[in-house]
Amino acid sequence: MTRPLSVAVAGLGTVGAGVLRMLRDNADIIAARAGRPVAVTAVSARDRTRDRGVSLAGLRWYDDPAALAADPAVDAVVELIGGADGAARALVLAAITAHKPVVTANKALLAVHGGALASAAEAAGVTLAFEAAVAGGIPVIKALREGLAGNRITRVSGILNGTCNYILTVMRERGREFAEVLAEAQKLGYAEADPSFDIDGIDAAHKLAILAALAFGRPVAFGDVHVEGIREVSALDIAYAGELGYRIKLLGIARAAEGGIETRVHPCMVPQSAPIARVDGVFNAVVAEGDHVGRVMLEGRGAGAGPTASAVVADLIDLARGRATPVWGAGSGALSNAPSLPIGAHVGTYYLRLMVVDRPGVIADVTAALRDAGISLESMIQRGRAPGEAVPVVLVTHETDETSMRAALTRIAALDAVLEKPVLIRIEPA
Amino acid sequence: MTRPLSVAVAGLGTVGAGVLRMLRDNADIIAARAGRPVAVTAVSARDRTRDRGVSLAGLRWYDDPAALAADPAVDAVVELIGGADGAARALVLAAITAHKPVVTANKALLAVHGGALASAAEAAGVTLAFEAAVAGGIPVIKALREGLAGNRITRVSGILNGTCNYILTVMRERGREFAEVLAEAQKLGYAEADPSFDIDGIDAAHKLAILAALAFGRPVAFGDVHVEGIREVSALDIAYAGELGYRIKLLGIARAAEGGIETRVHPCMVPQSAPIARVDGVFNAVVAEGDHVGRVMLEGRGAGAGPTASAVVADLIDLARGRATPVWGAGSGALSNAPSLPIGAHVGTYYLRLMVVDRPGVIADVTAALRDAGISLESMIQRGRAPGEAVPVVLVTHETDETSMRAALTRIAALDAVLEKPVLIRIEPA
Repeated sequence: MTRPLSVAVAGLGTVGAGVLRMLRDNADIIAARAGRPVAVTAVSARDRTRDRGVSLAGLRWYDDPAALAADPAVDAVVELIGGADGAARALVLAAITAHKPVVTANKALLAVHGGALASAAEAAGVTLAFEAAVAGGIPVIKALREGLAGNRITRVSGILNGTCNYILTVMRERGREFAEVLAEAQKLGYAEADPSFDIDGIDAAHKLAILAALAFGRPVAFGDVHVEGIREVSALDIAYAGELGYRIKLLGIARAAEGGIETRVHPCMVPQSAPIARVDGVFNAVVAEGDHVGRVMLEGRGAGAGPTASAVVADLIDLARGRATPVWGAGSGALSNAPSLPIGAHVGTYYLRLMVVDRPGVIADVTAALRDAGISLESMIQRGRAPGEAVPVVLVTHETDETSMRAALTRIAALDAVLEKPVLIRIEPA
Repeated sequence: MTRPLSVAVAGLGTVGAGVLRMLRDNADIIAARAGRPVAVTAVSARDRTRDRGVSLAGLRWYDDPAALAADPAVDAVVELIGGADGAARALVLAAITAHKPVVTANKALLAVHGGALASAAEAAGVTLAFEAAVAGGIPVIKALREGLAGNRITRVSGILNGTCNYILTVMRERGREFAEVLAEAQKLGYAEADPSFDIDGIDAAHKLAILAALAFGRPVAFGDVHVEGIREVSALDIAYAGELGYRIKLLGIARAAEGGIETRVHPCMVPQSAPIARVDGVFNAVVAEGDHVGRVMLEGRGAGAGPTASAVVADLIDLARGRATPVWGAGSGALSNAPSLPIGAHVGTYYLRLMVVDRPGVIADVTAALRDAGISLESMIQRGRAPGEAVPVVLVTHETDETSMRAALTRIAALDAVLEKPVLIRIEPA
């Protein structure tokens, strides 16, 4: 057996400790699959004294993570510090500069600085691996970049944030409102004390930006992702979705469309019969559609120490075996320059829910606004009568472009009889 | 860009033509992802004149497939002839002997001769790739052997035969019997004229043997797989399954158990809430359970020209990039020698359906036989009364070993009041 792969790990939080534990507990099968032992020899973390449930005896300790890259006995660096900037970025750049391969779980870093980091890695001729950055233990980076590599991908979509999926699942199952389910999720540890990164869709958008870059072979473009979170999803709309044969999911969607690539993260209605509609709770799933393979779905745990460690260790085994792939699946000279499309160019069908005063003529005004924008209706629900009071009206459109939809929406929202901000949810095909 | 990878393809049936088409249609993205063009330069097939919908102009043609391996201008050989022996095996051996990497979609060859072929490939230092051999376009070989490589896999299971899954799906949805649905599937082209290879579970067993070898890092052991097909599944049992909260699926299951590895293919009852229960029609799915990653499911099309070509081309891109993995995920020196367990050692719960004469004392005789074998009951259904006539009785057991279950079954089948061969279906946990 050849020389061990000597690994430095920066960041010993839940995931870092999980990686050390996995490398220790499964050392035999990891060595068999890697062709040589994979051994952590150096670490860096803030607190030297905290009990992490795994022995750090004999490991070289560095207070400055970037110093790991300079350790001549280190073959590869694992970055688990997190955050798009600061110490994480400094370490990854230092490792690349030192011609050492990097494994990271850092979606924010990849999404925001992935273009520059990929160029630096290519110039230095080192691997930058990040299976753990998207969908935790599900090997979706490998599937897209290698397993489906022969396909022209037409669409990739996914449930990319377990916190949001958990909240939406509980809202649906128990008929409860967002705020109370969020509070409960925070108590259970399924949502952070400051949950905005998850529930406002930013975490999912980081991951979607990475998936889109892989699927369409172009540099990551996080700034182009249209992002909406789940704060405004109500129990009422979830109930109507059910009635119409849909479920509401926060999806990240990247799609090859006329003239470029759509990338968006927002609550969607998906048909109940779609496999992704049934992925509930904290689970993640990614659906890739290729011109030859058709639709492939991968489903599993998207977060947590075990699943994330599983992805990090898979990347280390690839390194140990010498299996390498360019960051976006192709070298910089072979990347696509397909532009990102603005959300206004999106074409699809829409769910529109209004609270209106129940009086004659209101529906006529609403439908006239839609007609004037060139939008036709597939269905309408106005249930119950309460003359003079507020009642919900639900409309489902035929296909239209988002610019027209928004023009109609502005006019509808301004109607006297429309009492609240209208709710607009995009409907996705199965 | 470096020199193209020069590929020879043996077998120009549906899949072979699909591979040529995919390499032609997606030449640009395949070259980008492979780092160089992937070009078919030589082919072998029976009929030179048949129109395959793809031009063969300029390709060197060999009547003897094994001659492809001797062509000095060929870098890699794709074997799409099929069959465990004969021309397919001769070609693969010739290519390995000539130190040329091989890509094959041939599950029968891998299942029956995979041990010897893997040893030969290792000795010659060449890659033997077979992503297309299991679950078509779903990158399940790559997921198990690389993406989840750091995990101790505890169980891998799957819907591995689209024909069987289609038949069982239609039987359930329409309440129809096996024979008529099979006949219809044959008319629609979803089942072969001689369907036994599919419906008797042999095709699924070939694939399961391969998955088990990868999951547990040991040489393939097809002869040890316990195989039952779907011929005896009846509409009545499918209806009872639904009533009990299950669906009947033909699963391949490989599980690490006390003292070794269980490998079996048979109709199972799976909870309706299990993700795999909802994989319907011709779709395939594989669920892998790892000690750190938890449960990961991959779902997609398991057959057809496009999906199979997708997997073959992914293997060619790996070859072009120089990404290599030992056949069973680890070198021969690091493989496990865990033994296969006989089906008698299986421990689980069972569904038992009898047709009995409706008269007093029958249930007492049946339950006594179970009690004497140490088997306890979870539930019993005996619906309707028809004194003196045949009625179905359904029993669900608590956990027991199969040897005890079969002993009880022999005694029950011999009872006067039991009119038909009892139906026994294993229940799998979610």
